[in-house]
Amino acid sequence: MAHKFDVLTIGNAIVDILAHAEEKVLLDLGVTKGMMRLIDADEAARIYTLMGPAIEASGGSAANTAAGVASFGGMAAYIGKVATDEFGRIFSHDINALGVHFATAPLSSGAPTARSMILITPDAERTMNTYLGACQQLTEDDIDETVVGGALHTYLEGYLWDPPAAKIAFRKAAAIAHAHGREVSITLSDSFCVDRYRAEFLELMRTGTVDLVFANKDEVRALYETSDLDTAVTCFRQDCRSGAVTLGGDGALAFREGELATASAYPVETLTDMTGAGDQFAAGFLYGIARGLPLKAATELGCMAGSECVGHIGPRPAVNLAQLARDTGLRLS
Amino acid sequence: MAHKFDVLTIGNAIVDILAHAEEKVLLDLGVTKGMMRLIDADEAARIYTLMGPAIEASGGSAANTAAGVASFGGMAAYIGKVATDEFGRIFSHDINALGVHFATAPLSSGAPTARSMILITPDAERTMNTYLGACQQLTEDDIDETVVGGALHTYLEGYLWDPPAAKIAFRKAAAIAHAHGREVSITLSDSFCVDRYRAEFLELMRTGTVDLVFANKDEVRALYETSDLDTAVTCFRQDCRSGAVTLGGDGALAFREGELATASAYPVETLTDMTGAGDQFAAGFLYGIARGLPLKAATELGCMAGSECVGHIGPRPAVNLAQLARDTGLRLS
Repeated sequence: MAHKFDVLTIGNAIVDILAHAEEKVLLDLGVTKGMMRLIDADEAARIYTLMGPAIEASGGSAANTAAGVASFGGMAAYIGKVATDEFGRIFSHDINALGVHFATAPLSSGAPTARSMILITPDAERTMNTYLGACQQLTEDDIDETVVGGALHTYLEGYLWDPPAAKIAFRKAAAIAHAHGREVSITLSDSFCVDRYRAEFLELMRTGTVDLVFANKDEVRALYETSDLDTAVTCFRQDCRSGAVTLGGDGALAFREGELATASAYPVETLTDMTGAGDQFAAGFLYGIARGLPLKAATELGCMAGSECVGHIGPRPAVNLAQLARDTGLRLS
Repeated sequence: MAHKFDVLTIGNAIVDILAHAEEKVLLDLGVTKGMMRLIDADEAARIYTLMGPAIEASGGSAANTAAGVASFGGMAAYIGKVATDEFGRIFSHDINALGVHFATAPLSSGAPTARSMILITPDAERTMNTYLGACQQLTEDDIDETVVGGALHTYLEGYLWDPPAAKIAFRKAAAIAHAHGREVSITLSDSFCVDRYRAEFLELMRTGTVDLVFANKDEVRALYETSDLDTAVTCFRQDCRSGAVTLGGDGALAFREGELATASAYPVETLTDMTGAGDQFAAGFLYGIARGLPLKAATELGCMAGSECVGHIGPRPAVNLAQLARDTGLRLS
């Protein structure tokens, strides 16, 4: 079957509320830097009161990746649940405006669109406080077989393991993709997410439910409960056919059916906000894989997109990534 | 009576929806670059559909000025009308988080919180499409005498002339301020606003209803219907006791009871977004005047704040302006 999309991503559809914060604010709030924690509506209200002036921008890890793929010129699709409220309209508008196919039926009553209050500390690290709201209602009914079957690659966020119904949706999407001979990937999302679902993530990898796994160095170490990165990567390569590990300022490494590649990070004028860096790495890497680029070239596109992302506030590209790749001298086809 | 606030600002309470746009988009939409135009709900929906991916940030000209005054360390208050919806909560949160006193009762039913869809062209110019919504319901009942009487300076935006009830609120605020021996200023807001209300703005100046008038070079030329800036400024100085004219990259000039001062613009690394530049000039200038600084020093603070604003997306300071002034070697007291 001819494909309609390079990459389909599935995840929690979230609007980000981003504010600068001093380290002290994290202590006052009792939150651990760098993590994503789930909060209820009451805690969301408490955090918001204590937050500084913010800006709002569409987010959601997998949606950010779809935005990145589109910015590279790829054909992208997204599945995720918003509500029929102002934040839902913002989310839908932004992803549609990027040219990403997004047709998941919004939730018409009940919980509001998800929001994540993101505190950006002076070291550019981000700490996320997420109220899942409507994302709790993403179910297997939202997995459209024609979209999944028509995508060369289906990418799923580990965060989907948090809302119970989404986990079932995830497995359905993976099964459909494989039935159509497509590739399935997952991002481990964050090290606390790995701690919550370690056994299940390993099961997904070892049973071949996912073909490709994205992790950063903290996540891969958390997965194998070791502080030694080399040990973790060795285990990781045994457990999955393809994988990519982002290394912050040290770039990334990737492996695929025995082949190994590395790429360096790109210069960043001012390290501003880490939000979305991993999502954009995945965008560049997946675009490259979907377009049949060599492993190293795909890894370089990932590093370029991740480096672009950390130079500004917000989780999606501030410039056209295809143009940036051309200006940087990187291959797109 | 002792004062409680350095500056009170009154205006249309708006959340900005900001997106980059090519010049061609303005042509497609049939809008004139650089202007603020008022639109209804249907036109708002049409424009939003045609806009690129956006970010949302609290705006509103006079509210931006209050935010700037607070960033300088000034005691600021704001009066404006939001609705009890998500955008209203965003607006209220952001201005409160800056330490600005904001206690206007929100509109509990009817129109939603105002929003302005702002298209930023590659030349950093902004074109604003504003749906006033709840701002139409700002009335004289919202003018709190204890707040107006307790502010050294009351600053009103010319845009208040658009919603009919706000005009009455404006005159009430000016009368209360003068009854308490306080100073009243207005910004002419934009040249199309001047075209709509030229006679009334001149009347406010010539009758002393306002003591200080802010304009940019387009607005002051529009006010006197001349293309010659010198001619316009000469007329302007005859019609009001104090005034300030911003000159873009050429800085600003100000006059006050016979005295004249000029200041240069500050270097801007990348001219990114003109949204809010005039609002931030007013913030610096008003902070300086309220704190008793010499005219030139106040004008310099205004130019510094305006220059900071155009270097990033969004209408409010991205850094602490008091700290920036100290780093720049400018007087704050």
